[in-house]
This record gives sequence, C-alpha cells and structure tokens, in this order.
Amino acid sequence: MNFLEERIVRDGVVKEGNVLKVDSFLNHQMDIGLLNEMGAEFKRRFEGKPINKILTIEASGIGIACIAAQHFNVPVVFAKKSQSINLDGEVYVAEVESFTHKCINHVIVAKKFLTPEDHVLIIDDFLANGCALQGLIQIVQSAGATVEGIGIAIEKGFQSGGRMIRNLGFQLESLAIVDGMDAANGHIEFRPQKAAEPEGGEADKAADSVFKPEECVCRSSTLD
Amino acid sequence: MNFLEERIVRDGVVKEGNVLKVDSFLNHQMDIGLLNEMGAEFKRRFEGKPINKILTIEASGIGIACIAAQHFNVPVVFAKKSQSINLDGEVYVAEVESFTHKCINHVIVAKKFLTPEDHVLIIDDFLANGCALQGLIQIVQSAGATVEGIGIAIEKGFQSGGRMIRNLGFQLESLAIVDGMDAANGHIEFRPQKAAEPEGGEADKAADSVFKPEECVCRSSTLD
Repeated sequence: MNFLEERIVRDGVVKEGNVLKVDSFLNHQMDIGLLNEMGAEFKRRFEGKPINKILTIEASGIGIACIAAQHFNVPVVFAKKSQSINLDGEVYVAEVESFTHKCINHVIVAKKFLTPEDHVLIIDDFLANGCALQGLIQIVQSAGATVEGIGIAIEKGFQSGGRMIRNLGFQLESLAIVDGMDAANGHIEFRPQKAAEPEGGEADKAADSVFKPEECVCRSSTLD
Repeated sequence: MNFLEERIVRDGVVKEGNVLKVDSFLNHQMDIGLLNEMGAEFKRRFEGKPINKILTIEASGIGIACIAAQHFNVPVVFAKKSQSINLDGEVYVAEVESFTHKCINHVIVAKKFLTPEDHVLIIDDFLANGCALQGLIQIVQSAGATVEGIGIAIEKGFQSGGRMIRNLGFQLESLAIVDGMDAANGHIEFRPQKAAEPEGGEADKAADSVFKPEECVCRSSTLD
C-alpha cells in the first residue's frame, strides 16, 4: 500500500451505499503534510510533461491543487460550480447533468485563464462517475488548451469514470483506486498499482470495458 | 505599499459598485507564490499565538488557508456553505442571513473537527460586511474553542465588517485594507498600515464607530 492507501485504511470510514468518508484528512479537515506528499507523487507521475497550469474545481479540489502547484511551480485555476450562471465577462461553461444527483450543474471558467498555450494538469479529490471531470476536460479543449494529465486522490474503481477517461487516452493517475468496500467490516479493497505506470497502459487493459453513458451527460458551450 | 497592495494595484480591476476584481491572482486563478508570501506574513503577524488549527470557508478561502497552514504546521478545516443542511453526523451550524444578497446561508463545520482544545486562526480572502466571518466565529465559540486571530487578504474598509470584528476585541489582520475605489480612473486608496500592529490598537481607534446591525444577522445552532 502507498501512503494514501495506508491513510485511507487508518482514518477512512466505509459507510453503507459505497460511501467512503475521508473528511478527517482530505475534504473537510485537510492534513497539509499529506497533501504535500500527494503533490510530490503527482509531480513524479507527470514528470517531463510541459505543465504550466493546474485546473481544479471547487471546493475540495482546491487545497490539493494549491499544495501540488508548489511542486510544479505553476498557478492554479479553480472552476466554479453553479446551478445558475452569473459570472460576468466571457466564460467557458460545461453543463454537467448528473443522473445520479438528478440535477444540472454548470462548471465555469473565465476564458482569460485558459488559452491555446496552456498545458493543463487537472486535479481533483474524488473520481466516481467522472461527470465534473468530463466538464473540466471539455472546458480545456474548448479553450484550445492541452490536457497533459489528470491527477486524482481517490478513484472509485467500481464506477465508470476512470475507465472512460483512460479509454479516451488521457493519462489519469489516481493515487488510490478503491475497487470495493464493505460497510459491514470496514474492509477496503485497493487496485494494485505499479510504482510508475506507463502512459496508455491502463487504456489498453480497459479497452474492452464498456462506458455507461447514462450516468452523466456533458455539454459544453461558451458564453460571451 | 506592501506586496499585496502592490499586486492589487498592478492586477486588480475596479468596477462600478465598489467591486474589486482580483480573480487573476487570488480567487479564480491563484498565484501560489503570492499565497506563500501571504502565509509568511500571517505567520509574522500572529507570531507567538498558540495556533493549532486554521479554519476557513469554501471556496476561495481554501487555497490561502492551505498555503498559510504550511507556515503554522497545522491542519486546515474548511466550513461548508449551504442553503440547505444535508451533512450527516453532528455539525455546528451558523445561519447567516445576508440582507445584501437577500438569502440565508448555513455555514457548517462537523463537530469532531473543533474542540475546546483548539486554538483557531480564521482565514478568508475578503472581508466586507463580515457575515460569513461572524458565522465562523460563532461556530468556533460554540465548540468552546478559542479564536486566536483572523487573517484576511483584502478588507473593504468602507464596509462595517472589520470595524465590528475589531470592536469585539479580536486580532484581525487584513493584509490590504481598501478605504476607497474609483471605477472611473481605477484608483484604489489603501489604509496605511503599521509594519506590525499591536493587538487591540485598531479596536481602540474604532471604539466610537457604529456597527450597522442591519447588514447581516447571524444565529448559531447545533444539529445532532
């Protein structure tokens, strides 16, 4: 187990309904030392990529992204989530329709903060269905910028988001991938990870898996 | 001018209605080097205080708080904002009624992350009416914890929040205090700051000023 998996086993709480609570160290109270280890590991996994900006989404991605940014020496942009759109100026908007949560959210980034010259590392705390992540990818692509990679703290490997993103050819690095949880005994099953996974390896392995498009729908647009 | 005031003059944009846009370096895109300077300055201003936790509020306070936390070597807790309450478990809730925005927001922190042993530095990006800040203070006090100080990036000195908080006796340190703005010519007037302001000094000076209680109302409660 790596440092994050060990911490999840120690301080994470498995609840009914495949819920993993990590609020004591990751997304309500934040252990900054742990975030710093995560930042160093993201730097190692994306070594050599010409990353000049980190993009995340409010709220719980922001802390992880800011600490990681110190390892890359780049600024952070955080996308705003809103059910309505009231940012002034020119913005990129991805409409993320979550069938799970039965609502539509807008993911919003001001146009001036993403340009075709940008090489973006997307960072977030959790990946499950990947709805918000799809919105972020679409926004980067709408700007003509490049997604150099995606760094996630905890992926729920039994949901389809990670498989779909890897099938699309992105380098997705999740520091911990949970393949199963048992609320009755608290057991958490992690997917074995290679020390340094070559780009595309996961995509090849997952090529025969099926994306379930009903779990979320994303449409991107630009507002002037 | 200090480093933050200089940056505001260089990259901030004054808009009609006393709006100061600092989204290119503080609260949409974040300059992590600047945040680090701010963290070092907060450490200097609160030197000697037995701070063991930083409390902030989503979303734009989180980055500032996390980078500052590295200078204090303490964890960060961020309060959640919600119009509804759906966190499970035991939580502290402050109900913040903003007459400015014509809505009620709940500021929420899980009880397990604030205890009577905690000595808390509250950090946020902006202080204007101070509604959210009052909610955070009430939550810390509900937990029996101690507010050791409040660190703000930019205070709108022409609104009543800062005056009120200082009158209550808190050590409030705003790295930049804007006393006036002119959208026509972009001019920003900063309140002169001493290099290191003694605790209580501002409160004494402001003792004859009047808090306008109509600007926000806070009620705190606990939910089990």
